[in-house]
Amino acid sequence: MDKVVRVGLLGFGTVGTGVVRVLTENASLIAQRAGTAIAIKKILVRDPNKKRALSTAAELTTDPASVIRDPEIDIVVELLGGEEPARTLMLEALNQGKHVVTANKDVMAKYGRELFEAAEKNNVNLLFEASVGGGIPIIRPLKRCLAANRISEVMGIVNGTTNYMLDKMTSEGMDFATVLAEAQAKGYAEADPTADVGGLDAARKIAILASIAFGTRVRLDDVSAEGITKIEPEDIDYGRELGYVIKLLAIAQETDKGVNARVHPAFIPLTHPLAAVRDAFNAIFIRGDAVGDAMFYGRGAGSLPTASAVCADIMEAARDIAHHSSSHILCTCFEEKRISPISETESPYYIRLLAEDKPGVMAAIAGAVGAQQVSLNSVIQKRRVGTRAEIVLITYKVKDEDLQLAVQTLSGLSVVNKVSTVIRVVGVDAE
Amino acid sequence: MDKVVRVGLLGFGTVGTGVVRVLTENASLIAQRAGTAIAIKKILVRDPNKKRALSTAAELTTDPASVIRDPEIDIVVELLGGEEPARTLMLEALNQGKHVVTANKDVMAKYGRELFEAAEKNNVNLLFEASVGGGIPIIRPLKRCLAANRISEVMGIVNGTTNYMLDKMTSEGMDFATVLAEAQAKGYAEADPTADVGGLDAARKIAILASIAFGTRVRLDDVSAEGITKIEPEDIDYGRELGYVIKLLAIAQETDKGVNARVHPAFIPLTHPLAAVRDAFNAIFIRGDAVGDAMFYGRGAGSLPTASAVCADIMEAARDIAHHSSSHILCTCFEEKRISPISETESPYYIRLLAEDKPGVMAAIAGAVGAQQVSLNSVIQKRRVGTRAEIVLITYKVKDEDLQLAVQTLSGLSVVNKVSTVIRVVGVDAE
Repeated sequence: MDKVVRVGLLGFGTVGTGVVRVLTENASLIAQRAGTAIAIKKILVRDPNKKRALSTAAELTTDPASVIRDPEIDIVVELLGGEEPARTLMLEALNQGKHVVTANKDVMAKYGRELFEAAEKNNVNLLFEASVGGGIPIIRPLKRCLAANRISEVMGIVNGTTNYMLDKMTSEGMDFATVLAEAQAKGYAEADPTADVGGLDAARKIAILASIAFGTRVRLDDVSAEGITKIEPEDIDYGRELGYVIKLLAIAQETDKGVNARVHPAFIPLTHPLAAVRDAFNAIFIRGDAVGDAMFYGRGAGSLPTASAVCADIMEAARDIAHHSSSHILCTCFEEKRISPISETESPYYIRLLAEDKPGVMAAIAGAVGAQQVSLNSVIQKRRVGTRAEIVLITYKVKDEDLQLAVQTLSGLSVVNKVSTVIRVVGVDAE
Repeated sequence: MDKVVRVGLLGFGTVGTGVVRVLTENASLIAQRAGTAIAIKKILVRDPNKKRALSTAAELTTDPASVIRDPEIDIVVELLGGEEPARTLMLEALNQGKHVVTANKDVMAKYGRELFEAAEKNNVNLLFEASVGGGIPIIRPLKRCLAANRISEVMGIVNGTTNYMLDKMTSEGMDFATVLAEAQAKGYAEADPTADVGGLDAARKIAILASIAFGTRVRLDDVSAEGITKIEPEDIDYGRELGYVIKLLAIAQETDKGVNARVHPAFIPLTHPLAAVRDAFNAIFIRGDAVGDAMFYGRGAGSLPTASAVCADIMEAARDIAHHSSSHILCTCFEEKRISPISETESPYYIRLLAEDKPGVMAAIAGAVGAQQVSLNSVIQKRRVGTRAEIVLITYKVKDEDLQLAVQTLSGLSVVNKVSTVIRVVGVDAE
């Protein structure tokens, strides 16, 4: 083992600390498995004098160019997060002939194409396993292990914060505001939780997964995102009575209408493998024409789990360097497929509404939705709220745009006081 | 795309048919993703005139040498199963400079080392993703995606037949003999079910997984295997009352005593991710120092799921051929670690026994096990059977050899009629 592969880190925060720790503590095991020693030479930091939990032999610098242009550095690992300067630094590193490893979903979801082109031009790796699902192997399994499959569906719990929140709401009956405050106090949710609870974080991840699964560029703008802010404890209770659990799902499908990608809360059957994903864990469920149903489960965030994925990518690049090898899998978006908007997607729906509690109301409701080609599987009166009745409708599989019209019609009925919640039901095989 | 990578198949049975189907139906997608067209040139069969469900342009032959020595064939895919002639043909193919892909757990568990040496010598791939977990990506994720981790535990449901049987026994209260007859009638269990229900099939798979996870050769003989033939409906019921579900688990751990590998029925908490694995599905749960807990789930057998894994391996070899690349990961058993026998493993235990139904019996039982350093978490009298009482003991975490002594002592007590079942409890974090 004569060669040492040298790494430059951009960023020494939570994930950077994890990467330094894993590469240091498991150094001999990593050298055996990668076929070469791997050393961190430089780390880009904001403040070199800051006290850190972990000491390192690497040189701390505030100058990105001194990392990216260092001729001894073979692999640049971008852990800054956010769009800039991450994107520019990654491009520069690729153009300097460095292999690039990143955990950055923002950049990969938005600027994937130009980064892949730069990697291709310079014949280097661009690896981003940690950008989706934290420590869970998912990008490499999709690109390599399931590569012989025509994938029809990717469905994931890819945001740990919201899964933790929904799990708490389910197991302890808390409402949204209470559980959010608790998650913030525990550091699970950020001070500004918008990207998590609004679905944007999950949307970025499903854009990346869908692009790989279907071989066509799915942009963040192509993803329809709805968060969990409207979910109320009643919905969770009523869902459970019907055999469902609520999850924030990131879903991408290829149908004869094209590729759709979306993030929204959904009821899934308690028997579905995703239903057992508790706490802040993530899981990604995949349906392929050969493999059938498969699922990948683990920690979607955190210093060491994310470092596990980043270090695997570093080892892959190091192995290629040590073997003078170049079987990189870069951009796999070989086609331009139509993006099918969410209005064209289909599923059964759960609708909770408040209506007058008097004879004939059920018939009026059933008639109104029937006029929009929406068939009802069940209509259940759950409880009285003053002089009104809370009613839950479960539809058969219906096109989203027809459902939206049915909801409008319902809202306009004089006997209907309010349509409280509309939630898709997914993962039902007979849907 | 000027080059076509040519494949020779040894075997045209269930998996072979799946491989032909996937490579044919998904040919264009596979060519895009592998960076080269892949064509099956020859297939070794027993009877070229047999009527087959699938037609193929490949040449059918009964002469193995005509496949293995064909200079146009780049990749030999071994799908014969069993030890011979599979092992000899694979060795010959490697020595002819062919990349070899196999689904053969018997050969890989027993002759891994010599095959890897031949692959190394000839600078070719030896890929065997399909040998464990059917379509589930697990070998490649272990070798690549989790490579930066020090793995402490691999725990899997790796035999679909027994999982199907235990699931039926759990959900429908059937006894072992009835569910076995049903599984055989449905084709899920073979006429001679010994390898499945006795744990041998799972033992081969955990030998392969343990060797990769811990970087030391774990031989089939190193694996202690116990099947599911002794499980009775009472155990399943009592387990459920205690919050457990029973599974046939293949477990390998690295502790300060060395590496242990074993197959046995076990109670796992209903909240454990493996508890939700139903029907004939497989799942492999892994604990690493960086990633934490991760799990891989899917179909562990069947024509198309297994073909999914075989074709991914073919594509990997094809990619290397097309790129003149050679970053093969071959044998990763870099060390010789001590094998720790099952007598040194530790867990809590469930013991069901039949005793005299009279005062002082509980105290005699507790005293007898206590004398062997076994502490009891609970002693529960479940029901009367004639003049006797059925009693369930749950121990705290205890060393297997101490437990076996305690069971012997119990069996020798005059008030104890029979120790009916002894089952380990695993997956309890506080165990």
